[in-house]
Amino acid sequence: MLGANVFFKCENFQRMGAFKFRGAFNALSRFDAVQRRAGVVTFSSGNHAQAVALSARILGMPATILMPSDAPQAKIDATRGYGGEVILFDRFKEDREALLQALARERGMTMIPPFDHPDVIAGQGTAVKELLDEVGELDHLFVCLGGGGLLSGSALSARALSPRCKIYGVEPEAGNDGQQSFRSGHIVRIPTPKTIADGAQSQALGEYTFAVIQRDVDDVLTATDAQLVQAMRFFAERMKMVVEPTGCLGFAAACHAGVPLAGQRVGVLISGGNVDLGRFGELLAL
Amino acid sequence: MLGANVFFKCENFQRMGAFKFRGAFNALSRFDAVQRRAGVVTFSSGNHAQAVALSARILGMPATILMPSDAPQAKIDATRGYGGEVILFDRFKEDREALLQALARERGMTMIPPFDHPDVIAGQGTAVKELLDEVGELDHLFVCLGGGGLLSGSALSARALSPRCKIYGVEPEAGNDGQQSFRSGHIVRIPTPKTIADGAQSQALGEYTFAVIQRDVDDVLTATDAQLVQAMRFFAERMKMVVEPTGCLGFAAACHAGVPLAGQRVGVLISGGNVDLGRFGELLAL
Repeated sequence: MLGANVFFKCENFQRMGAFKFRGAFNALSRFDAVQRRAGVVTFSSGNHAQAVALSARILGMPATILMPSDAPQAKIDATRGYGGEVILFDRFKEDREALLQALARERGMTMIPPFDHPDVIAGQGTAVKELLDEVGELDHLFVCLGGGGLLSGSALSARALSPRCKIYGVEPEAGNDGQQSFRSGHIVRIPTPKTIADGAQSQALGEYTFAVIQRDVDDVLTATDAQLVQAMRFFAERMKMVVEPTGCLGFAAACHAGVPLAGQRVGVLISGGNVDLGRFGELLAL
Repeated sequence: MLGANVFFKCENFQRMGAFKFRGAFNALSRFDAVQRRAGVVTFSSGNHAQAVALSARILGMPATILMPSDAPQAKIDATRGYGGEVILFDRFKEDREALLQALARERGMTMIPPFDHPDVIAGQGTAVKELLDEVGELDHLFVCLGGGGLLSGSALSARALSPRCKIYGVEPEAGNDGQQSFRSGHIVRIPTPKTIADGAQSQALGEYTFAVIQRDVDDVLTATDAQLVQAMRFFAERMKMVVEPTGCLGFAAACHAGVPLAGQRVGVLISGGNVDLGRFGELLAL
């Protein structure tokens, strides 16, 4: 299709169905004894929630997760299934930060955010490290971009292990705060975007992630929801894989963003596969 | 779920999306120069059609495939996409054997049937050979059963490489000719069964496949269409894989057929992943 050699890193096959396990486990595994006793608190629309719940269970600590009430039911169920305490909130009306700080204060829990934390970024970077260890250096690398944890970690790995590789972040077109930030040189905040890529509905990059992205990433691209559905259908029909909409960002941009890839070695991060089956069936039927 | 260690051989990730490539390529690669020039003719409801078309293209020979007119559109399209000439027939009204013999006679083509041929059986057996090479000996092995090519090949591999392994064939409940044949000691022929497992709608085992199955298989089990849908949903939701209904037979029986598996090492063959996306979406939504 692209005249290129494309290597997919399939984090939909990762534990709990997404790369987020890497960052959460890395961060929680570095807690000291006092922190472990009180446990962890976080917020997430989905995959980070499951990642923290599962990592906390493996490491034997309590976990409380604030989730938006419109998160996919499969992700809420799975987070509870891993033993996490889920508290739902209305993300269009309630103040998430205030809720979080109150929980952390009352329970003595350590806050591990979904992306803007050095240990989380380092953990996410292991996916591209593994890809490069396995397939060797690449010419281009497409990574989905929400808050920037995966992209900044990937950029750190790629800069070290494949220095000439061009690194692209890919956002939903409806929520291109990262692209605006990258091109303007300062963090741009947007309203919560409406897109099927529910894992990339973040409003702004973080301080840590933006600094790495600005330094090490070559460009930030976008993909439309229609392009994500087309990629999702391709993954299901030809590669026999379930990929969630957010996980389709990298491949959608490789297909449609106009980067010349013929004859090149191309890496594509598939971030996860956690999608409600009903929703997945609807999108396939479009 | 089963208290067992379950190892899946994922032939949905095989070339053209199903194990059938193994048998077809093995058979066609053994043609002599005269046979190669005239090419191959066969019949198939789907995956064998694509396997023959692709193998013929790789080996540079013509391929003509008789397909039932109610075969999944994705399989007809894919067969044509691999360069095969597809001739459709009404399998409830027309005489497939007469059509085939006429084609073979007129064009000088060699007939390679979907399952009842030593070279096809030997090719299919390489899937379980690879599984056992990779994971070591097993206590139980569940293999889907249509005409018996995969089951007889699997049994030959397992008997040689894991002699104490119990081997089960699994059929759709609506079409248990293999079970009737296995238990009665002679080949039982049934009308074309109505089941969502379109790859296992065969009416009877073959002479070669029955002989191996009778000698080397421990039992033939069945699964209902509802159990297949449940397994299909599990594969999509938890393993992020697209598996066609026929490919769910082995796991459905491992879950529901009452074989005690706790503490055991269990192998499950997933035969393929070629399912119309529209149909797949409908089944996920049930």
